[in-house]
Amino acid sequence: MEQPDRTDPGLAAVLHALGDPVRLDLVRRMAGNGECTCSPDGLGVPRSTLSNHWRILREAGITRTRRDGKARLMTLRRADLDTRFPGLLAAVLAENGRRTH
Amino acid sequence: MEQPDRTDPGLAAVLHALGDPVRLDLVRRMAGNGECTCSPDGLGVPRSTLSNHWRILREAGITRTRRDGKARLMTLRRADLDTRFPGLLAAVLAENGRRTH
Repeated sequence: MEQPDRTDPGLAAVLHALGDPVRLDLVRRMAGNGECTCSPDGLGVPRSTLSNHWRILREAGITRTRRDGKARLMTLRRADLDTRFPGLLAAVLAENGRRTH
Repeated sequence: MEQPDRTDPGLAAVLHALGDPVRLDLVRRMAGNGECTCSPDGLGVPRSTLSNHWRILREAGITRTRRDGKARLMTLRRADLDTRFPGLLAAVLAENGRRTH
């Protein structure tokens, strides 16, 4: 018998992953550009710190990673997120758009 | 001249505050009941830990606190949140509702 948690760790993990300025920036870049390299220009964040941010995003189900030669390229799992948490990504990206343009 | 950050610490702080199972539970209770005491039944979380959760929610602008005698009662700043981050709270609460009923 299914006994879903009232506290929903899946949603909490996604919100936690999005709840950081650098990770929000990475999500916004992916939303705008489609793919993002591990260490995009203009972030001013050490590569080792970025690796940790990418891990948190990946483990929360927010990004997908593909290899292209030695490079790794990340994309937003937009359709998956929209299915799991309808409206959430749109609200997050709309806010970024409104504040940054 | 206004120079909004591209990274938007306000949104990140709100997402971080929501990105915890206990804090999500508190938010859901306030959404359902209007007000919430500091230490509601059925959470199984020490009062000192709850104080910390309430502080994070308050500092992110998610809750408002009023005193009633010795008690403190918290409410969601729903209208403020809907203005600052349209659709965000609705997406978070819809997901909780869908998973828990």
